[in-house]
Amino acid sequence: MNDRFLRACRRQPVDRTPLWIMRQAGRYLPEYRAVRERVSFLTLCKTPELAVEVSLQPLRRFPLDAAIIFSDILLPLEALGCRMTFNPGPKLEEPVRTRAQVEALQQRPAAEAAPFVAQAIRMLRQELDGRTPVIGFCGAPFTLAAYLVQGEGKEGFGAVKTMLYQDPVVLEHLLQKLTETMIDYLRLQVLAGAQAVQIFDSWAGLLAPAQYEAFALRWVREIVAGVRDLNVPVIYFVNGAPHLLEAAATAGSDVLGICWRTPIDQAAARVGPSIALQGNLDPHALFAEPEEVKRLAEDVMARMAGRSGHIMNLGHGILPGTPIASVEALVAAVQEHGRSADYAPTPWAM
Amino acid sequence: MNDRFLRACRRQPVDRTPLWIMRQAGRYLPEYRAVRERVSFLTLCKTPELAVEVSLQPLRRFPLDAAIIFSDILLPLEALGCRMTFNPGPKLEEPVRTRAQVEALQQRPAAEAAPFVAQAIRMLRQELDGRTPVIGFCGAPFTLAAYLVQGEGKEGFGAVKTMLYQDPVVLEHLLQKLTETMIDYLRLQVLAGAQAVQIFDSWAGLLAPAQYEAFALRWVREIVAGVRDLNVPVIYFVNGAPHLLEAAATAGSDVLGICWRTPIDQAAARVGPSIALQGNLDPHALFAEPEEVKRLAEDVMARMAGRSGHIMNLGHGILPGTPIASVEALVAAVQEHGRSADYAPTPWAM
Repeated sequence: MNDRFLRACRRQPVDRTPLWIMRQAGRYLPEYRAVRERVSFLTLCKTPELAVEVSLQPLRRFPLDAAIIFSDILLPLEALGCRMTFNPGPKLEEPVRTRAQVEALQQRPAAEAAPFVAQAIRMLRQELDGRTPVIGFCGAPFTLAAYLVQGEGKEGFGAVKTMLYQDPVVLEHLLQKLTETMIDYLRLQVLAGAQAVQIFDSWAGLLAPAQYEAFALRWVREIVAGVRDLNVPVIYFVNGAPHLLEAAATAGSDVLGICWRTPIDQAAARVGPSIALQGNLDPHALFAEPEEVKRLAEDVMARMAGRSGHIMNLGHGILPGTPIASVEALVAAVQEHGRSADYAPTPWAM
Repeated sequence: MNDRFLRACRRQPVDRTPLWIMRQAGRYLPEYRAVRERVSFLTLCKTPELAVEVSLQPLRRFPLDAAIIFSDILLPLEALGCRMTFNPGPKLEEPVRTRAQVEALQQRPAAEAAPFVAQAIRMLRQELDGRTPVIGFCGAPFTLAAYLVQGEGKEGFGAVKTMLYQDPVVLEHLLQKLTETMIDYLRLQVLAGAQAVQIFDSWAGLLAPAQYEAFALRWVREIVAGVRDLNVPVIYFVNGAPHLLEAAATAGSDVLGICWRTPIDQAAARVGPSIALQGNLDPHALFAEPEEVKRLAEDVMARMAGRSGHIMNLGHGILPGTPIASVEALVAAVQEHGRSADYAPTPWAM
């Protein structure tokens, strides 16, 4: 099995830097758009055959080192009784803003509410047959609450921040429920075969440090602890939070995923050596010419040269409209220059 | 004249911390909404009598230490030939994305393109009659380019970042034109009577440090240098950029305005003592109960106790829907606890 991704998560020596790409199954791929012309986003997520098909698409094109199951962080909220549509952004049927609404949220087992995810992961493992590991994922509680309280994606997510100041106890109650549901949801994925999990905290950067500790990090810590016994690497990706890196590194995760705002060597210096790092090429960099993409990708790897535990990735999801040639250039950069300094090949293999 | 705002900008002793509020003339005020029911946003900005009226509204309610002329950072782009509407967010008639479009941008004098701003400032000075200073303002070139290239406000402002990687020379050309226009525009405002100016860099936080230096900071430095001879304090407000504070402090401005993400004492420690700081109460904090608002405002001031040069403000514009009672609590906090540690009143005045 290609295990360099899992080895890098654990800061073990690897033959070269592993690469996967956030949102690697997505709209930049014509074959993905072809599937989406036929079915809605929700149908795609909830039909294991289709979810597996699009999860495999990027691996057919590029020699990536991990597959990630195709889904959306908001889907497991259906376990809480929340209904939503995607067009293309998510829209909750009803924002969750009052104490009564929070108390009314159900907590159905993920296995009942999202059986399709477990089934898709099982099928994906079978299809891959050890070629690459499978990553499962969930949203972090604060980020999920940002959507739930707002009712949709909206710059600044003012509603959850208003709740934080107006009624912090209700927000904590909501975060508690989300945390429990996410632990259950991640466990379901790992038991179905996910070999690593990523927790996406896309909006924690909206918080100042003390708030981050109380309303985001605390709950992420509980999730990490809640899956620790399953013995799979946990990646915590915190977006737009250059002021929170030191704190984020204490969540208990094996890997910290960072966005493009902080040069990765500076991030490494700030969080210390006892956590692997994932990232952090700017997704917009893939709109440069292929030669420049390669140079920029090499620059990220050069900044991590000599440090064990680096997983190459973008600093956020790959963008619709990204040229395929750019992804090829990124792949080439990793294959040609992703040799890890702490990997000692046997002399006859050099 | 109440000059504690101007004195704090220059890090001179003051009798108490001065206070003004970004977007203090705005939708949270019923009297502002009443004006907006009668006229469009653009008509309001372009009719000096009305712009002066709404600029004065917050000062009639609250004992603030500065007035800011009511306008929008995008308006002077009409000097470049760009046409736009507001509904309520800005929308450019045509995004500026090609070399030809950038080259076609005119550079009319601000006095011709935006005479109403100069006239409004003159009238506002007269109306205030020294009660408080008047602040003029403009957008920073990268932030203006973010809107111009995108064509509207949009989370992530992908278009300008794509241009940065795809065609950095065209972007630099655009930034150069914007810089020249903004210098002219700020000079117009100061010559009309503005006693301080603020440069708003709302979206520079989308850049990594090296890009920030090349595509944002460099041009802000030129603007600051371009108005230096007019001898008014310059405030540089950079939003959502906790990773850029040290760099932002080198723009040459007298004051650095910071958003709510970084505790202000930490910001002060990072940028050193030779620049005043403005901020940084979270605008969402004003949705807490008045007693809590007061406590949070006092906390900000306590973090700056003993440091000369603090202007109390929010960490971003005041939000529509903010309760008036919260602003009153903020005012009370400043009046009761905003005594500057380095102010030495004469003994008989104590």
